[in-house]
Amino acid sequence: MAIVSDGARRAGESIRVVSEFADQFLAADADGADFTFGNPHERPLAGLVAAIKAAAEPNGNDWFAYKSSVGSATAAVAASLGAEMGLPVAADDITMTQGAFKAIALAFDLLLNPGDEVIHPKPGWFAYAPILAHRGYVGVHTPLDPVSYDLDIDAIARAITPRTRIVVVNSPHNPTGRIYSRARLEELAGVLDAASERIGARIFILSDEPYRRIRFDGAAFTSPAAVYPWTLIDYSYGKILLSPGQRIGYLALGPLMPEADRNALTAAIFPVQTALGWGFPDATMQYAVPELETLSIDIPALTAKRDRLLGALKQWGYRMVDPEGTFYLWGDAPGGDSLAFARRLAERKVFVMPGTLFHCPRQYRLCLTATTEMIEQALPAFREAAPA
Amino acid sequence: MAIVSDGARRAGESIRVVSEFADQFLAADADGADFTFGNPHERPLAGLVAAIKAAAEPNGNDWFAYKSSVGSATAAVAASLGAEMGLPVAADDITMTQGAFKAIALAFDLLLNPGDEVIHPKPGWFAYAPILAHRGYVGVHTPLDPVSYDLDIDAIARAITPRTRIVVVNSPHNPTGRIYSRARLEELAGVLDAASERIGARIFILSDEPYRRIRFDGAAFTSPAAVYPWTLIDYSYGKILLSPGQRIGYLALGPLMPEADRNALTAAIFPVQTALGWGFPDATMQYAVPELETLSIDIPALTAKRDRLLGALKQWGYRMVDPEGTFYLWGDAPGGDSLAFARRLAERKVFVMPGTLFHCPRQYRLCLTATTEMIEQALPAFREAAPA
Repeated sequence: MAIVSDGARRAGESIRVVSEFADQFLAADADGADFTFGNPHERPLAGLVAAIKAAAEPNGNDWFAYKSSVGSATAAVAASLGAEMGLPVAADDITMTQGAFKAIALAFDLLLNPGDEVIHPKPGWFAYAPILAHRGYVGVHTPLDPVSYDLDIDAIARAITPRTRIVVVNSPHNPTGRIYSRARLEELAGVLDAASERIGARIFILSDEPYRRIRFDGAAFTSPAAVYPWTLIDYSYGKILLSPGQRIGYLALGPLMPEADRNALTAAIFPVQTALGWGFPDATMQYAVPELETLSIDIPALTAKRDRLLGALKQWGYRMVDPEGTFYLWGDAPGGDSLAFARRLAERKVFVMPGTLFHCPRQYRLCLTATTEMIEQALPAFREAAPA
Repeated sequence: MAIVSDGARRAGESIRVVSEFADQFLAADADGADFTFGNPHERPLAGLVAAIKAAAEPNGNDWFAYKSSVGSATAAVAASLGAEMGLPVAADDITMTQGAFKAIALAFDLLLNPGDEVIHPKPGWFAYAPILAHRGYVGVHTPLDPVSYDLDIDAIARAITPRTRIVVVNSPHNPTGRIYSRARLEELAGVLDAASERIGARIFILSDEPYRRIRFDGAAFTSPAAVYPWTLIDYSYGKILLSPGQRIGYLALGPLMPEADRNALTAAIFPVQTALGWGFPDATMQYAVPELETLSIDIPALTAKRDRLLGALKQWGYRMVDPEGTFYLWGDAPGGDSLAFARRLAERKVFVMPGTLFHCPRQYRLCLTATTEMIEQALPAFREAAPA
């Protein structure tokens, strides 16, 4: 009899392709050019270091006592999120979490029973799957538009069944960098309203927004929460501060949500945070939130890296998406086999992420957190591997 | 149709008594004597503050990159845990977690399918229940000896069914302060070995040891992992450092576990940590672990508080357990109604935890993290409320 649980086995299967990639490619030489995960390759923000140190200095006997959501953190979030959305957000609608990862698990566990279905985008983040698979929730990969990578509203409509409870919208989108327009989101809202009515159960949007503040060229951003009342927002400080090793983020109830639904979710959040093995972040990181809200990686520098790498690739015939946000580039692997492409580049110590991790084996992702030096180092290898 | 999931509802029901207690009693005046949760009431350890600040100082570009278990942390844990157990512990058998809470959730999710049963002690910690209830695992409250609060091996043997997969052993025990002897643990091991054989599935021990280093009068401690190979150990730094707001602890595979089982669990840990919404602690807290291993609250001071409060209570006729470890006192509520007792004391601004939170409505718990001043302040109220 197997010792590990069925859920553990399913979770493992759902991320096998990620583990195999890590094992195969990420013996990455220290002198390689690393375009894989969204990790820092330069010194952390000085402001982040200062904020953590300041937050470690006790200001009361209960400084390191058990903390659920700290009031100064939820107040700061409510103010900034409300300003960004142009709608009033209440601090009580914010739950601080150990990163967006935990906020996503929290949202799923709040709303889903085993067998319930979650529509999530293909290509899309690879870690929705293990959370879903572990609990016996059903992930339904639903393709984005194959050319524009915009939301394919018809594909989402077709994927809805009586068991659908959540549609994940990730904008700005990992890995394509697309930002969805308000008009498109309104179209989606209309479909979800009608479908909820039809199936007799409310379909929620989980708006996965960790890249919300990483946008290029003044691109506008609309949260689905501003157009569809039954929206939960997850956010992480790990992207804008390039510090995913410090687990701080939140889940927010959409400001337009009807009172009864808001109250039902609010009452369930503490028990589910507890059931997740205490999903609230470290006290220090919560105290730091007002300061973290003022910090950002260097977006103009990121834009310059995007322009340099994207410009070179397109000039050499690579078919790439023009990203409006995130720190990723997404495009077609020359020859149509992203694993072969990744292997070829790895021989030149250039490490990219094959689309197999996103259920899109013909595409690949590049992460722009690589340094300018890494980009210059990698360009000859990209040029050599360019489409014929 | 209800919006929140069945699991969320079950988790909420399982801790309703805790939430109601918090709502009812913990409008606690700032000048009250607080003997409720295991929270600090004095300034944090200076060494802890210094360790966090030092760990926030970057030593590499990847300082705040995604971290699973950090090698320097698991090495420090393996060395100290091995020394305490007198058995070699491998760093690879340690997974760093966001506190013991997350380690417990991880252990359950590694081993349990919905419907599987976990035997856990009554009285006992109230947060096993919401984790179990949320996933549809079945908690089986099994009484300790009603007089000595020792493990009742016969009661455990009787509680075992074909669905039993885990027996939780919590020593030193919250709330009674009992530490179980090696002989008693060997008896339990024998029962579990025979039962595993009989039901055709391996029953594991989860050794919940966050109070392992908080012991009085030189009391010895034996981990179940030293006598039963199929043991997982969870540990938290939140007790010994009195800093539960900083989420750092670990899950360790018992050093005697057979290789095949060890490998099966090891392979499953990363996927389940991922499915928990990333259960690994903040980078800073992991870097601090070697330093945290050298720190402790003042055990002689804690012992003095135990002696003062326990001595007074016993002198006035209270029937109390003599704790060998933890920072709790446990005893019979005068009149046999712990809620009435807690209410009566609360009127005097003395806050205790009624046994209703531990499924033992006739007993109550006192937490010795209260200050000496709080103890002195509370003694007249305890004297007044003493058994007739």
